[in-house]
Amino acid sequence: MTHRFFVEGPIGDDALLRGERARQIANVLRLAPGDVVALVWEGIEAITVLDKVTGEEVHGRVREKRKIEDTEPRIQLTLGVPLLKGERSEEIVEAVTQLGVTTIVPFVSVRSVVRALSESKLERWRRIARESAETARRGHTPTIEPVAQWATLFERLSKPVLIPWEGEALRTLTDALPKASAFSLVVGPEGGIGVDEIRYAWEQGATTVTLGRRNLRSETAAIASVAQVMGLLER
Amino acid sequence: MTHRFFVEGPIGDDALLRGERARQIANVLRLAPGDVVALVWEGIEAITVLDKVTGEEVHGRVREKRKIEDTEPRIQLTLGVPLLKGERSEEIVEAVTQLGVTTIVPFVSVRSVVRALSESKLERWRRIARESAETARRGHTPTIEPVAQWATLFERLSKPVLIPWEGEALRTLTDALPKASAFSLVVGPEGGIGVDEIRYAWEQGATTVTLGRRNLRSETAAIASVAQVMGLLER
Repeated sequence: MTHRFFVEGPIGDDALLRGERARQIANVLRLAPGDVVALVWEGIEAITVLDKVTGEEVHGRVREKRKIEDTEPRIQLTLGVPLLKGERSEEIVEAVTQLGVTTIVPFVSVRSVVRALSESKLERWRRIARESAETARRGHTPTIEPVAQWATLFERLSKPVLIPWEGEALRTLTDALPKASAFSLVVGPEGGIGVDEIRYAWEQGATTVTLGRRNLRSETAAIASVAQVMGLLER
Repeated sequence: MTHRFFVEGPIGDDALLRGERARQIANVLRLAPGDVVALVWEGIEAITVLDKVTGEEVHGRVREKRKIEDTEPRIQLTLGVPLLKGERSEEIVEAVTQLGVTTIVPFVSVRSVVRALSESKLERWRRIARESAETARRGHTPTIEPVAQWATLFERLSKPVLIPWEGEALRTLTDALPKASAFSLVVGPEGGIGVDEIRYAWEQGATTVTLGRRNLRSETAAIASVAQVMGLLER
């Protein structure tokens, strides 16, 4: 299976990779001159034959370019992801990138235990998203936005917004599924979303939904709701 | 929120917990006499007031019993879970228990990297399933069966069997969703399921399905497919 790498800009006839990518190709994957990789930028895949491989610098010649749009979902889904303890937010980023989200907005709300995301952790989220999009063979890597507070979150989300919430008994995600080509999901942190926060979200036009009668952890709710949306809209 | 604990047998007017449970209640959760817990056995929840709490022994008096069947899904879903590297299989057990699976069958197939599950690891899977069922407020804890090989897996699964497979282009999980009240899903290991194995599965009556055009890791495929089934059948 050809390894895939997102690159930072348009691809010409030659490709030069440095830094982390060169180290990964030379030292981790142990690729060599003659091996073929796929470089991806904005939904274009460049099939590239390597001709120089060191831990500092990898060079290759592009043999063919092709569009890979067909692995991208038809809907543009934005996911509000709470800052969670340990690696739980990163697990969400990895899984929902594979499932096809377009944008991830990390956020803090009143019951959040983790209340800040360092610049290095944000970079880590971006790296996980990029590598996960590569593994999933996507044409685009999801955008990871800076951290929002609940009060500013809704300005940052594409409308309509659906919020899986344990206080919502009847309206399922399937019932409330928008016809729009872009919309958002927001999943609460460990302790859930406060009633005042839900009231505020309703005022912003958000719709609360239930994911069923069992109590889900944040990361399961995030992955399950994105999976259900993609399953319903990608038929 | 009341803490819930699955117990090993029917509950009378008194409850006595020892060992791991007593340690958890006394030393981890730091509950005290007067605190209320819910003890669960076979879908019956016993609301119990603690009157003695030590790390060795916890005693309480049952105040009320009630059925909690309504958090259990209407379908009995069995999931074939591959042995994966690191904690990935455990992540699946945790998430799909919350989502409502009834039975989990760990298995090894030709491309499996991890090829055995020690007795202590199997016990760990069972503990994760129990704790995750408690958190999810389920009435039953999923059964974790002993490890199967691909050749014996299909005898152990309730029929019909659906297999998300990257070689299946057209038939979606939604298209193939059984009307049966019990069925199974099987998700492949890191390297996927071999073509000979798929052929064997077809001979056993299994149906291959696609989860979409993006390449999913095993654990994402497992969580996503269970979430989609529950989303479609639990309306």
